[in-house]
Amino acid sequence: MTTEGVLTPEFDRQIAVSPAGPGRWSADLADGWTVGGGVNGGYLLSVLGNAVRAALPGKPDPIAVSAHYLSAAVPGPAGIGVDVRREGSSLATVAVELSQGGTTRITALATYGDLGRLPDDVATTAGPPAIPAPQECVPNTLAPAEIRANAKLMDRFEMRFHPDQVGWAVGRPSGLGVLSAWFRLAEGREPDPISLLTVVDALPPVTFDLGLMGWAPTIELTVHVRARPEPGWLVVRHETRNVAGGMFEEDAEVWDSAGRLVAQSRQLARVPRPA
Amino acid sequence: MTTEGVLTPEFDRQIAVSPAGPGRWSADLADGWTVGGGVNGGYLLSVLGNAVRAALPGKPDPIAVSAHYLSAAVPGPAGIGVDVRREGSSLATVAVELSQGGTTRITALATYGDLGRLPDDVATTAGPPAIPAPQECVPNTLAPAEIRANAKLMDRFEMRFHPDQVGWAVGRPSGLGVLSAWFRLAEGREPDPISLLTVVDALPPVTFDLGLMGWAPTIELTVHVRARPEPGWLVVRHETRNVAGGMFEEDAEVWDSAGRLVAQSRQLARVPRPA
Repeated sequence: MTTEGVLTPEFDRQIAVSPAGPGRWSADLADGWTVGGGVNGGYLLSVLGNAVRAALPGKPDPIAVSAHYLSAAVPGPAGIGVDVRREGSSLATVAVELSQGGTTRITALATYGDLGRLPDDVATTAGPPAIPAPQECVPNTLAPAEIRANAKLMDRFEMRFHPDQVGWAVGRPSGLGVLSAWFRLAEGREPDPISLLTVVDALPPVTFDLGLMGWAPTIELTVHVRARPEPGWLVVRHETRNVAGGMFEEDAEVWDSAGRLVAQSRQLARVPRPA
Repeated sequence: MTTEGVLTPEFDRQIAVSPAGPGRWSADLADGWTVGGGVNGGYLLSVLGNAVRAALPGKPDPIAVSAHYLSAAVPGPAGIGVDVRREGSSLATVAVELSQGGTTRITALATYGDLGRLPDDVATTAGPPAIPAPQECVPNTLAPAEIRANAKLMDRFEMRFHPDQVGWAVGRPSGLGVLSAWFRLAEGREPDPISLLTVVDALPPVTFDLGLMGWAPTIELTVHVRARPEPGWLVVRHETRNVAGGMFEEDAEVWDSAGRLVAQSRQLARVPRPA
């Protein structure tokens, strides 16, 4: 596909939605975003978020999206239903569900607006994560072939890990519960508010850094998008502080190339079972 | 009201719900929980959460509750509709709305389960907030009468602020964006998972500590309840790191008397306008 001679990056094709009746959209979940047994939850949120954007003219940007994950999605057709719960002058809130074959995969609430119309005050006390330059970090392309075979999503982006936080890859996790990495989508797809919904859930589970290897099913994930990201590399930092009762929280921060904190997320996930 | 001679604490009367048809409950929002122009959002979440508990036999405890606040509630009658989206063996997820006179106040998603049935592993790396003993902290009863008149909710609980974090009360906010306090409900009402939904939103907005006085309307609030709290004082800590675009995030932690991190929440709220 081309637009004025420019190739459409694969990400835009993979998150595309088509109208399918009043308040309904259809999508085709990409095989390329699978990891372990299912489709990556962040990518699913971008697909769902793209349908919400289509449903809310004049309010293109996710501000707060809360998703509860009900069952594992598989590649192939999916339907998305959007039900507007309130439409105000600056913000609108919708209930939205992504389903496959009559089974709900994700039920979510999403508050959208226009990030370009927010006041430009910034009084952030947080600082960007300390991470060496991308060329001094560890690329995900170095992952063993058997890991890559089970995580097709790793071909969808470039990820470069903080060299002090990859001990888990060689059986020496730090035990701190922190992972950080540079991130950019394949084919030069620049970040935008919709792609940030993917970015907050693209790194391996932070529990890798605690030596708990394996897929960590998300129960609930909420994302706040705080600004439109500038083009270029993003820095993503994951942290967990409370592993208990078979669950853990994973906080993510996403910083753009201008050094701005553009997204914050928290998810509650199940601790991976020993393989 | 008495049960075996023991008075029912006011909190239980204030969050009470009555069946009002299939999937419907009615409540009477207490005048005593008002602050500024509206009813406190945490208290509303306990009312709503109590209806979800009634709707899900065998799954009494909120695990993850995500609420989007659509309009300010007022004291008086309210209706709550609960729609089960998935019921599994250990967790169930519902969509739930609290309305008054046909206007939705809160739309939420709630995943419930039984905290008593979770595995008892705890590998929390976080530590409880450093705070002097309750008798060395600053009680909310010292607040000026004009503040108390505008915040009736302050009579619903005891709150004792960290003495280093009350500079905002005398025009000298620390600027750090941190508030912590001891908390317990009035009339000896011990904490439980439903009351924790109130506790995470009972302190003044953390923006007080940045010198931004005034009510901070919540856009979205998600709570994770991680364990049943032990009886006694709770410690609550609020923090914000990203004030930008007219909004801020407020993270809350609640620790119980046994030193366990029992709830974590994050909300996105609007920065208060100068009075």
